[in-house]
Amino acid sequence: MRHIDEDTITQAVIARHAAAGDARLVEVMTSLVQHLHAFARDVKLTEAEWHGGLRFLADCGRVSSGPRQELALLSDTLGLSMLVGTLNRRRPRGVTESTLPAAADAGADEHGSEPCFVRGRVRTLDGRPVAGARLRIGASAPRAAAPAETGADGSFLLAARAAPARAVVHDGPVGRMLAALGRQPWRPAHLPLTIEAPGCEPLVTQLFRSGSEHLDSDAAFAVRSSLIADWVRHEPGQTPDGAFSDVPFYCIDFDFVLHAQEPPA
Amino acid sequence: MRHIDEDTITQAVIARHAAAGDARLVEVMTSLVQHLHAFARDVKLTEAEWHGGLRFLADCGRVSSGPRQELALLSDTLGLSMLVGTLNRRRPRGVTESTLPAAADAGADEHGSEPCFVRGRVRTLDGRPVAGARLRIGASAPRAAAPAETGADGSFLLAARAAPARAVVHDGPVGRMLAALGRQPWRPAHLPLTIEAPGCEPLVTQLFRSGSEHLDSDAAFAVRSSLIADWVRHEPGQTPDGAFSDVPFYCIDFDFVLHAQEPPA
Repeated sequence: MRHIDEDTITQAVIARHAAAGDARLVEVMTSLVQHLHAFARDVKLTEAEWHGGLRFLADCGRVSSGPRQELALLSDTLGLSMLVGTLNRRRPRGVTESTLPAAADAGADEHGSEPCFVRGRVRTLDGRPVAGARLRIGASAPRAAAPAETGADGSFLLAARAAPARAVVHDGPVGRMLAALGRQPWRPAHLPLTIEAPGCEPLVTQLFRSGSEHLDSDAAFAVRSSLIADWVRHEPGQTPDGAFSDVPFYCIDFDFVLHAQEPPA
Repeated sequence: MRHIDEDTITQAVIARHAAAGDARLVEVMTSLVQHLHAFARDVKLTEAEWHGGLRFLADCGRVSSGPRQELALLSDTLGLSMLVGTLNRRRPRGVTESTLPAAADAGADEHGSEPCFVRGRVRTLDGRPVAGARLRIGASAPRAAAPAETGADGSFLLAARAAPARAVVHDGPVGRMLAALGRQPWRPAHLPLTIEAPGCEPLVTQLFRSGSEHLDSDAAFAVRSSLIADWVRHEPGQTPDGAFSDVPFYCIDFDFVLHAQEPPA
């Protein structure tokens, strides 16, 4: 292995991993090294570009802290999050589509100014209503908004805030990358939400606002046509929960179809 | 583009870059996105692995500071540095081979304990001696050791310290990666050096010690057979520079062949 050159280096690196005990790790690293090297060869990566790329990744790591995760944002904006989500969440047609929690949302203002009500039913693919399903705004930790729970007929009413279209955090390395690529940092208006119900797979998804700008240019590539819904604007008055709003509010009618959980192996 | 799925996401991302002004950036990013997505598809990357990878890169960025550049070390240990070096430094056969400055050396102790003398001649490919060439230990900034200069016949004598085989910095994310892959973190004994001469391309290279452990398993994949030299051990006594050493010392005889610089365009 002393005569390693540009043609043999890839195999030389892969051969070093033969002693690893974790077969899956070897599989992943073998493919990673092959694609990384093929990329460098395909574009004949210059030393300046290589230096720039390493510096870029180091900068991403340095600004990452708490809710701000620049590498996850990079993954969102390069379509990797969307791809990994679809690779791992193949569900029968008819089940409500999921989206990976978008790192792009972290650090952005989650609070819209206008009340927004999501109402509908939760059911399984075979049409049975799901009672006791809990719906909440957001993808991970519970947010300020109270969760809603479905009744015996699967119906729910979830109170939220209508957030407008907003840009991903773009004052860091990823923002500079988007600018250099002539890309805008905006995401369309959307409502991230999570549904959990006994016997069903948890659903993490987003409801996109029909007619919103950036539906065709979501910086995080998360839009699915099946998740675009009408956000119907109402003048001040009585809201679906029987209260009164002195500002305009939105209603979204949307039914969710959950996937019955696989029984434990 | 609202019907993006796992088959169309790659093209959707690439299409977003069409507006970028920098054609080379578009070329590099197009290939990067294609290979990144192909990697995720090939191994069917799980969400846990994706999370782990993002966390790993963020950790690499966070520990990088000053001479410690964990992403560069990652590049070294995955063979990317070696590949980029050879892609960009193709020189006619006969010219002394170069190596990219190994990030793997940064942060490691550069100071060997025993005196070491490198002596030989510097010439061009057509055999002309190179007078006034400056040789120094290290890849970038001048080190403690004084540089040497070639005479009219191209001969030089460079005083250095013989560093033993040593491990790359492995108390961080890259060290954990190497351990998980069953790889050792050692580099063979080597002497990094730089030669600069008027009219010639600068040469950054390393002289590896013949017989050193790890010549076949350099963690940074930098060994070239043409750069392996005998480090001849001498008992205490008179040294090549006419001084006296009361500890054992090494002599390395090595001739360097520089590449005549392209005239400015």
